[in-house]
Amino acid sequence: MINHVLALAGGVGGAKLALGLMHVLPAKSLTVVVNTGDDEEFHGLHVSPDVDTLMYTMAGLNSEAGWGLAGETFNLLEMLKNYGAPTWFNLGDKDFATHIERTRLLREGLSLSEVTRRLCDKLGVQANVVPMSDQTVRTVAETVEGDLAFQDYFVRRQCEPVIRGVRFEGAQQARMSSGFHAALQTAQALVFCPSNPVVSIGPILAVPGVREAFQGFGGPRIAVSPIIGDHALKGPAAKMFRELGEEVSCVGVARRLKGICDVLVIDVQDAHRTDDVRAVGLEAVTTNTIMETEKDKKDLAQKVLHIAEKRLSN
Amino acid sequence: MINHVLALAGGVGGAKLALGLMHVLPAKSLTVVVNTGDDEEFHGLHVSPDVDTLMYTMAGLNSEAGWGLAGETFNLLEMLKNYGAPTWFNLGDKDFATHIERTRLLREGLSLSEVTRRLCDKLGVQANVVPMSDQTVRTVAETVEGDLAFQDYFVRRQCEPVIRGVRFEGAQQARMSSGFHAALQTAQALVFCPSNPVVSIGPILAVPGVREAFQGFGGPRIAVSPIIGDHALKGPAAKMFRELGEEVSCVGVARRLKGICDVLVIDVQDAHRTDDVRAVGLEAVTTNTIMETEKDKKDLAQKVLHIAEKRLSN
Repeated sequence: MINHVLALAGGVGGAKLALGLMHVLPAKSLTVVVNTGDDEEFHGLHVSPDVDTLMYTMAGLNSEAGWGLAGETFNLLEMLKNYGAPTWFNLGDKDFATHIERTRLLREGLSLSEVTRRLCDKLGVQANVVPMSDQTVRTVAETVEGDLAFQDYFVRRQCEPVIRGVRFEGAQQARMSSGFHAALQTAQALVFCPSNPVVSIGPILAVPGVREAFQGFGGPRIAVSPIIGDHALKGPAAKMFRELGEEVSCVGVARRLKGICDVLVIDVQDAHRTDDVRAVGLEAVTTNTIMETEKDKKDLAQKVLHIAEKRLSN
Repeated sequence: MINHVLALAGGVGGAKLALGLMHVLPAKSLTVVVNTGDDEEFHGLHVSPDVDTLMYTMAGLNSEAGWGLAGETFNLLEMLKNYGAPTWFNLGDKDFATHIERTRLLREGLSLSEVTRRLCDKLGVQANVVPMSDQTVRTVAETVEGDLAFQDYFVRRQCEPVIRGVRFEGAQQARMSSGFHAALQTAQALVFCPSNPVVSIGPILAVPGVREAFQGFGGPRIAVSPIIGDHALKGPAAKMFRELGEEVSCVGVARRLKGICDVLVIDVQDAHRTDDVRAVGLEAVTTNTIMETEKDKKDLAQKVLHIAEKRLSN
């Protein structure tokens, strides 16, 4: 019986599996370490898009789109427009409450981890949502048009400029958050949720010591491929892989995870790539990885846990 | 022809006359100096209730209630409640945009005057809305239950605790804002809008040099009484006068303004108090001072300007 899983997640796809894991595990048995490389200050407020996607999803408050809150209104942003503020980053009225409260607590001296824990507690999240680091790490898209801050690239430019690389500014000076570090000691399994390998998992791996900790992790390490066939279910992972010269497939994902992951869960559509994944050095397990319903999420989470339990009992 | 009026205002009643003055004067001929003693930080944001009431009113964006914006929603505040934040001070979603933008600009190093000018410009306000001071002045209600910060007394406690006095913390260290100082040099008339004499006009008078400047002001100084009969049209002025042992009437208002005001405009209902006002040392002029319609506001403003012009031509 597994009673502590450490999951890594970025945006919407990752949050779906994290939610599934939360539902199939005993309460408080899940730690989700979340990418903060796409955090940004908007209107003087600290916005943590991935942390919020995870928090809202785990609290059952997320919108159908996956990010942001259900039933949002956008009146504050409309008014900000009157003041000439840049409003290309869509922030809902309820969502602003999160950024206001987070910013207030950060200014009081709390760490991002402490703030996240407090907000999650208030929303009744039954998992431990942990930022990867309490220090500032900022993902920069190195595009053919020059460097773009991540949200500038991702939201304002809709990932349109071709990238030549990405870098994670501040990562070398950052430290794993204490919650991340603690979970690495106690978790029995490590799960890479189906998040963008470049800009969701990438920043986590860029924090000093993380890659080494994953390499030396004692329990099973299982990833779910965010790429099915030659496209990502959501987000720019496929486009980014292509522009970076990597194979746009679960095999490309396997290559990224080589050495820090044992098993790659691939979609039934990719069953024919099983041997290619194995050739990279990862075990391949085939199942349905498309999470549309709550049942899909739980089924995939259960599958991941079964794989982990099987490896633990061997 | 008067081409520059300096008006003093606090909340909703004052804003009504200020709006009337703006409409009957040539564009940009009005400077409104606004009380900032009831400013407060909520949720880490700088809220300037009186400045906003004036700004929204002059921009034609105010709600029917007089404060806040028309067509507001309160979704942000509802969400903040989930986070356990104190939400007794009602802030609308659009209103939050003002506090967010103001706070951002203040943190960038702009003065409250500069921020106010920028926000007013963006909203197309055709008057010069000026905080009384750029330094922090905080009104404290000295009640029988102890000291209460102004909004705590005014909003949370609904002015229920009996006051023994009020004080304006920081006033002695504050300076007139440069816009206030400049208007004192160039304005041809000084108008006390019908705002609470204790907590709207009081803080302005507590700023060093203001009372002396009013005493020595060269042009006509005209006030409109916020008290009609023995009650205030809006707000706690009557209750406060009573608790402070002052006469609850236009005569009580006259006593407060003695030495810094020449003419008190009183309501037709108070025509019988004309001699009592004169006995205090102010000229009394009787007219309708209840401003329900836009026409009421303009009529009263026109009346005030006529009084000023008459005195200037004498």
